[in-house]
Amino acid sequence: MGKFITIGERIHCISPSIRAAMEAKDPEPILKRAKEQLDAGAVYLDVNIGPAEKTGEDLMKWAVKLLQEHFDNVPLSLDTANRKAIEAGISVYNRSKGKPIINSADAGDRISNIDLAAENDAVCIALCSKSGVPANNDERLEYCQEMLEYGLARGMEAEDLWFDPLFLVIKGMQEKQAEMLDFIRQLTDMGFNSTGGLSNVSNGMPREVRPIMDSVMLAMAMQCGLNSAIVNPCDQKLMETIKSADIILNRTLYADSYLEL
Amino acid sequence: MGKFITIGERIHCISPSIRAAMEAKDPEPILKRAKEQLDAGAVYLDVNIGPAEKTGEDLMKWAVKLLQEHFDNVPLSLDTANRKAIEAGISVYNRSKGKPIINSADAGDRISNIDLAAENDAVCIALCSKSGVPANNDERLEYCQEMLEYGLARGMEAEDLWFDPLFLVIKGMQEKQAEMLDFIRQLTDMGFNSTGGLSNVSNGMPREVRPIMDSVMLAMAMQCGLNSAIVNPCDQKLMETIKSADIILNRTLYADSYLEL
Repeated sequence: MGKFITIGERIHCISPSIRAAMEAKDPEPILKRAKEQLDAGAVYLDVNIGPAEKTGEDLMKWAVKLLQEHFDNVPLSLDTANRKAIEAGISVYNRSKGKPIINSADAGDRISNIDLAAENDAVCIALCSKSGVPANNDERLEYCQEMLEYGLARGMEAEDLWFDPLFLVIKGMQEKQAEMLDFIRQLTDMGFNSTGGLSNVSNGMPREVRPIMDSVMLAMAMQCGLNSAIVNPCDQKLMETIKSADIILNRTLYADSYLEL
Repeated sequence: MGKFITIGERIHCISPSIRAAMEAKDPEPILKRAKEQLDAGAVYLDVNIGPAEKTGEDLMKWAVKLLQEHFDNVPLSLDTANRKAIEAGISVYNRSKGKPIINSADAGDRISNIDLAAENDAVCIALCSKSGVPANNDERLEYCQEMLEYGLARGMEAEDLWFDPLFLVIKGMQEKQAEMLDFIRQLTDMGFNSTGGLSNVSNGMPREVRPIMDSVMLAMAMQCGLNSAIVNPCDQKLMETIKSADIILNRTLYADSYLEL
């Protein structure tokens, strides 16, 4: 099994400075945010341009070229509800460091993003949900199977569907966490890749608590076989956790300086 | 499943100040070390008096009475190769907060400590080893079964055998960590209690690395069902990890202030 794949989440139009930079096509704030994440150890960078209904195609092309030209063809996750914008981004995407990721499909209205991945030889993040939060692991498994069959029928390789168990907020859904972790283990036992938006776990918690809670959840999820996550790579505690778990799982060789590598 | 049981390891004759206090029967250094650990969240305190061949019986009695009188009958783990000292300690032990733990038996020369536990209605830490480090999980399971049969034949309840998978040092045995974690899961799936000396994992690593490595290993082990460990409870990162994992596993109810509780 390879090293854990960290997908940096911080190029996101929800951030006022990134939104402004996207509107003005101002490279500097985006390049700065990208560099911070890559320096911190991100492998992929997520590029979330929001719905971007009017300008999405142009914007995604610009962002993909900007980031790949400045950072040695860094692999990217393309994150928008605008399908044409994803296609436009892929049309200028350089695959030398990894396939583009489409973020994301589900087993409901967004299942057609799997078509998009199949047509464009992309990885697709596949949320194990249909409408809202899955009630239990039976539902997760049902949606996973639906998306798997859908993708395979369209010529995808199973390894290019990265299943997302849907990390749930602990405040309010504390009793559902262990089951979600069990589902990651099921995915692993079936040989599937998995990923997810980790930070949802600690949503609503005091700021000082979030890094420790996210870190512990990630260590537990990695023990279950999670091999990727969409995270803030500038959270040092979290990145130290990932590096340590990769050592424990023998995915990288231990060195006394491993936290600096 | 109940909250994780932290066994504080810091009353240990390997510490010069504790050794001197044990030799002089000086209560203060021992009470200070006990208070630090209990304040930090330890449930049990381990009392390691070393081989203590000559003075062990007297010393263990003194230590048990000292600690239980000062700390509301705090439950204790009695840790010595001197069997008579363990018996002496149990003879004055107050069980109102929990059975005494005998630390420890194995499937080899030390199996008779299981007799001692059976005769004295004590918990026994049962190392899944015979002579040295187990080669693999088949060996661990074999030793576990031997000790289980041995204990049951002598009237013990299975729940009073706390099986220790033997945490291994990462430096030198990196490739064996995932298998050891799998064994904890096997113990959990069989319904057994588990514990272990965690800090061995990070032995030989730089001082600044040890807390993060220990914490990540413990989170991963707790995900596998580990329900106790012998640790330094004054390692704040480690205790925050335990509290966070107990939240994720729904063993304690979340509150924004949970790290302070």
